[in-house]
Amino acid sequence: MITDRSQVTNLIISKKVAKAIKWTQVAEVVGQSKEWSTAACLGQMAMNKQQAEAVGALFELEDEAIAWLQIAPYKGSLPTAVPTDPLIYRWYELISVYGTTLKELIHEEFGDGIMSAIDFSMDLNREADPKGDRVKVVMSGKFLPYKTY
Amino acid sequence: MITDRSQVTNLIISKKVAKAIKWTQVAEVVGQSKEWSTAACLGQMAMNKQQAEAVGALFELEDEAIAWLQIAPYKGSLPTAVPTDPLIYRWYELISVYGTTLKELIHEEFGDGIMSAIDFSMDLNREADPKGDRVKVVMSGKFLPYKTY
Amino acid sequence: MITDRSQVTNLIISKKVAKAIKWTQVAEVVGQSKEWSTAACLGQMAMNKQQAEAVGALFELEDEAIAWLQIAPYKGSLPTAVPTDPLIYRWYELISVYGTTLKELIHEEFGDGIMSAIDFSMDLNREADPKGDRVKVVMSGKFLPYKTY
Amino acid sequence: MITDRSQVTNLIISKKVAKAIKWTQVAEVVGQSKEWSTAACLGQMAMNKQQAEAVGALFELEDEAIAWLQIAPYKGSLPTAVPTDPLIYRWYELISVYGTTLKELIHEEFGDGIMSAIDFSMDLNREADPKGDRVKVVMSGKFLPYKTY
Amino acid sequence: MITDRSQVTNLIISKKVAKAIKWTQVAEVVGQSKEWSTAACLGQMAMNKQQAEAVGALFELEDEAIAWLQIAPYKGSLPTAVPTDPLIYRWYELISVYGTTLKELIHEEFGDGIMSAIDFSMDLNREADPKGDRVKVVMSGKFLPYKTY
Amino acid sequence: MITDRSQVTNLIISKKVAKAIKWTQVAEVVGQSKEWSTAACLGQMAMNKQQAEAVGALFELEDEAIAWLQIAPYKGSLPTAVPTDPLIYRWYELISVYGTTLKELIHEEFGDGIMSAIDFSMDLNREADPKGDRVKVVMSGKFLPYKTY
Amino acid sequence: MITDRSQVTNLIISKKVAKAIKWTQVAEVVGQSKEWSTAACLGQMAMNKQQAEAVGALFELEDEAIAWLQIAPYKGSLPTAVPTDPLIYRWYELISVYGTTLKELIHEEFGDGIMSAIDFSMDLNREADPKGDRVKVVMSGKFLPYKTY
Amino acid sequence: MITDRSQVTNLIISKKVAKAIKWTQVAEVVGQSKEWSTAACLGQMAMNKQQAEAVGALFELEDEAIAWLQIAPYKGSLPTAVPTDPLIYRWYELISVYGTTLKELIHEEFGDGIMSAIDFSMDLNREADPKGDRVKVVMSGKFLPYKTY
Amino acid sequence: MITDRSQVTNLIISKKVAKAIKWTQVAEVVGQSKEWSTAACLGQMAMNKQQAEAVGALFELEDEAIAWLQIAPYKGSLPTAVPTDPLIYRWYELISVYGTTLKELIHEEFGDGIMSAIDFSMDLNREADPKGDRVKVVMSGKFLPYKTY
Amino acid sequence: MITDRSQVTNLIISKKVAKAIKWTQVAEVVGQSKEWSTAACLGQMAMNKQQAEAVGALFELEDEAIAWLQIAPYKGSLPTAVPTDPLIYRWYELISVYGTTLKELIHEEFGDGIMSAIDFSMDLNREADPKGDRVKVVMSGKFLPYKTY
Repeated sequence: MITDRSQVTNLIISKKVAKAIKWTQVAEVVGQSKEWSTAACLGQMAMNKQQAEAVGALFELEDEAIAWLQIAPYKGSLPTAVPTDPLIYRWYELISVYGTTLKELIHEEFGDGIMSAIDFSMDLNREADPKGDRVKVVMSGKFLPYKTY
Repeated sequence: MITDRSQVTNLIISKKVAKAIKWTQVAEVVGQSKEWSTAACLGQMAMNKQQAEAVGALFELEDEAIAWLQIAPYKGSLPTAVPTDPLIYRWYELISVYGTTLKELIHEEFGDGIMSAIDFSMDLNREADPKGDRVKVVMSGKFLPYKTY
Repeated sequence: MITDRSQVTNLIISKKVAKAIKWTQVAEVVGQSKEWSTAACLGQMAMNKQQAEAVGALFELEDEAIAWLQIAPYKGSLPTAVPTDPLIYRWYELISVYGTTLKELIHEEFGDGIMSAIDFSMDLNREADPKGDRVKVVMSGKFLPYKTY
Repeated sequence: MITDRSQVTNLIISKKVAKAIKWTQVAEVVGQSKEWSTAACLGQMAMNKQQAEAVGALFELEDEAIAWLQIAPYKGSLPTAVPTDPLIYRWYELISVYGTTLKELIHEEFGDGIMSAIDFSMDLNREADPKGDRVKVVMSGKFLPYKTY
Repeated sequence: MITDRSQVTNLIISKKVAKAIKWTQVAEVVGQSKEWSTAACLGQMAMNKQQAEAVGALFELEDEAIAWLQIAPYKGSLPTAVPTDPLIYRWYELISVYGTTLKELIHEEFGDGIMSAIDFSMDLNREADPKGDRVKVVMSGKFLPYKTY
Repeated sequence: MITDRSQVTNLIISKKVAKAIKWTQVAEVVGQSKEWSTAACLGQMAMNKQQAEAVGALFELEDEAIAWLQIAPYKGSLPTAVPTDPLIYRWYELISVYGTTLKELIHEEFGDGIMSAIDFSMDLNREADPKGDRVKVVMSGKFLPYKTY
Repeated sequence: MITDRSQVTNLIISKKVAKAIKWTQVAEVVGQSKEWSTAACLGQMAMNKQQAEAVGALFELEDEAIAWLQIAPYKGSLPTAVPTDPLIYRWYELISVYGTTLKELIHEEFGDGIMSAIDFSMDLNREADPKGDRVKVVMSGKFLPYKTY
Repeated sequence: MITDRSQVTNLIISKKVAKAIKWTQVAEVVGQSKEWSTAACLGQMAMNKQQAEAVGALFELEDEAIAWLQIAPYKGSLPTAVPTDPLIYRWYELISVYGTTLKELIHEEFGDGIMSAIDFSMDLNREADPKGDRVKVVMSGKFLPYKTY
Repeated sequence: MITDRSQVTNLIISKKVAKAIKWTQVAEVVGQSKEWSTAACLGQMAMNKQQAEAVGALFELEDEAIAWLQIAPYKGSLPTAVPTDPLIYRWYELISVYGTTLKELIHEEFGDGIMSAIDFSMDLNREADPKGDRVKVVMSGKFLPYKTY
Repeated sequence: MITDRSQVTNLIISKKVAKAIKWTQVAEVVGQSKEWSTAACLGQMAMNKQQAEAVGALFELEDEAIAWLQIAPYKGSLPTAVPTDPLIYRWYELISVYGTTLKELIHEEFGDGIMSAIDFSMDLNREADPKGDRVKVVMSGKFLPYKTY
């Protein structure tokens, strides 16, 4: 019996390793971007019935696991407050170094408010470069102004 | 006597408030992007002599402060490991939610390695949208593969 | 010279004690609710020019302080991650105890997403009760569904 | 053998997913509000015998689990001091941003003391709004003045 | 100018050392128990006008400091989450060792709820004992049952 | 095979729920106060052979568990440095608020030293009160003066 | 079924103890340095197919484990932020004591930037010394200058 | 009056910026390696009288500061347990990633024990490389075996 | 299969309780002091073959466990950074209270350096005293001066 | 005006550096051991009038500082929970490595209880040794058995 969403994540990763499935294949059967589909499989987004069944078929999951995929999960994918994995830490470092810069520039352009992390999309691609290829990430989030009342 | 780079950051912010200077103006006198120029003023990048003097002239800083602007600073712009400011926290949340997704997709595309946070550039713009304007951030970092030896 | 927004908060609190001003009076000169006006004075919201000048006049602040009131502040009003003040801790406890309940009920009613803390308003009142008066707080935040992309 | 109250919470959540039960249904069989009933099922409140048996029938729990539902649990529903789940974090952020505001306004209205988190009730509803529906939460807690002695 | 309640606490302690005043003397001029009076001077309770003026006279405080004594303070008297002072640590240890015991026994006697830390009084005395005198502390707090709603 | 004292605590609590045993009954078979007996069952005190066998008989424990009850345990009953359970937190709050008061008053009465948490006893009772019954706790610990050498 | 890379690390260590295999033997079958080969077995580097199969043969691992060896792992080999093991702590202490020295000297020689921990190699050897042999570690990492944009 | 060794460190850094002194110049007047001399100036090593006076002459320090340079300092140069500065963090990451590798290899070569961080020397140099120059650090520490007794 | 040294520690403690073996008996079969032998059994020291086999015979361990006793363990015997057990905490408190005193006196006698925790021995005995017996611990560690280079 | 005991500690250390006083000289004028006298000067023990005046004369302190020396201080001499100074860290490491050993051996000899850190004395000396002199520390604390009640 499955008692925790992370068990489903572990199942998917284990099957993905054993069957050598790629995330771009997952995105195809889900019918969404590879970014959203990966996040959903890793327990950060809730799927609808059709998406969950497609993922279930691809990874040969049982009905109970497919039911869990449709539940809004307790989000947060990292085991520590400051990430230890070098790839993920670089992103944390960017916020440590550029956090106040992002704040200053968004406020200068938009006034007081935030960039939504919910009404948000992300696109990750390879950018060819003769001095070494680059990772290019485009992030787009709705600006939400603070409400006065 | 100035004994800490953060005193210079405080001076700049204080003068910026008093004289209502904009970061885009700072970028013009520095001759770099607004993203880099802001980060440099906030103590995250080292300026060269010419840049430091231009910033010094704009904010009416003394020679000692201008000398500090050219020193590689102890980086890290946030007072706590988990940021409390809502705008900056949203970025931390993105890493918490999408961190493992970024890791999976970069590894699928590039193999084991990281996206550099040093050979890195960033561009922040307003994206007009009838449902509410959006913040669009493009990040580009060189992929660095792990070396085998 | 003021180099930090919290110095303005300290100034306001110090003047408020010395002159025995009430937050409801502050709200009147600001022209917003007492909840928003108090938060703005305590460095959690940015005022517009007119509001800042009214507050400046009430608390006899200098021009530099009035300029700071119009800057989007680095938010976060508490000195520790887990608050030590008993009144504020009770709110933290409510989230600790009822956090998963709020999550379950909002998801059941709205699906996956969050209640905005930005497009948000709050109203605090005394509720007369023969067994002892009660604090009644009404909170209202826009529901933001997670975007699929 | 059950050796921990959280095992019962896991059992209930697991059955709820498998049988697609709604919290409003749970509230009906418990005979209390959906807010209290959900919190009680999630291990934050102790049920009386009748309530526990009704929940046991609904979720097909064994007698041992039903006995556990009547024990005052070790409360606290979140795995970390600062919550990682975006929905729950927003509530934590509200306290971070508005904590001192709540303190000031309650003290101005009532004097020194706290709002009880024990003699407390909560009501969560959808508030229809043309600009997007809102989550409305009404919280009511008895004011408890500090005792002089 | 005083901008923080802790400055008043420091003033009082400094004067107390210089003038060798005893807390029992403070309690006399305040007209409350020595326990409450000490806590109030140390910034954990708010005094009324008469109490504040009596304390002000005893310690030769200025009017501004006397005004601060009447404000509900941001409570919490210790610099670290786990206290380092051996005397105070022993109390923390008692909770670490006996915490679950207190919980079990209060629940067995009263049902689910808490002992109030607000409607609370404390009495500390010397208990003569041939094997070495003892510190005797009597604590009394109202039981507050969890409300069903 | 039992490899950890906490397994015995879990066993006792599990049996206590299933068989609806009260701590006062436990105290009777142990022949000590309910406070000490509860703490001993919860893994904070070591029992002698006779006490352990009485507890073993009451809870139907095996010989191995009875042997563990006689070992001095690794003490500390709470899972976090700052307790999350509201009842136990109130005690932590009392130390946070009254810690420096306890220190001042004990030093004024006894000089530099501590109240022992080892040569210590505790008595918890219901105190009838028309405004709501109260929890009364009497704590008594030997004063230990700092040694000069 | 293997659901986590650390299970493979445990398997390898367990087999290494049982079969008394040396890391230098592992390095031989892997065909890389002993430093890289050890780190790869301990879950910090990803192997290619050939390397994974050689390690699998040496430690008698099943196919599933061999598949996991080829996945880029979630890196970070220590259970706590400040290491408790005396050998590993000495390295942490070196950074604590010499961290700002390394920063000053690298900046003086190279300007603002970092030493890569990715394009990095390490060589550990015994250095004979009459006063007691020494551990000699040579570390070499590419200097990466901060990019201006 | 100087009451803390870090005030001397700040003085030295401040003078170093103002007078554009290089660490290699400091090493010359101290008569030791640049690595040791820098660490000593930054408050991590104690100088002898001659070294302190040479440093005092170079940075125009007063006698009191020169006296402080000869005191064994409270060591530890970083403001947080996990460093935020990207250059210093890379070193922390190396320990996080390679910590267990260092442990395994040192134990395989030397048996149980540690590499001394006291009887230790370090040499940092530029390593020319057509693909980009490298930072080369040679560390040498005496092996200290655990004593059996 | 044993995958972690702590499983062997648990085995030994479990057998020690079941068979009522004393540490002094263990020391006899190991042929070292009771202090070293206990630490080695608790996973803090590595035994040689002969010692491990003697311990294995005494506690009836299997060959795999005996192999683990000869591996240099990942040291650190406490579950939290600040220990919760009252006996162990008292030692932590001694360092908190006397830490700077130890530092001052060792530096006054020996100059800058440390007392080794590796080339170290410890002897614990009962010291008879009419006012209550005392625990006497003699610690001896080699002084290691900081090396200049 | 002195508002904190640590200001007196800073004064003493500053004067000690400037006047090159030794702790053994301090001990002579105090008339106690060098261990106790140092701890008292560093703010961990309270002096009597005579001791405080002798220390005041030696370090040329004002009357206010001498008054503070006689107050029971808020103890705890280290700035962080895990000490960063290598000398003090070694003591912390000893507790980390030997903590459970101390616990086992004291319980085996004395039963459940603790070694007092209050009725405690310490003696630190140089132990001549041809292989390098050693630091020898003898600690003696009264055993306090847990009380049954």
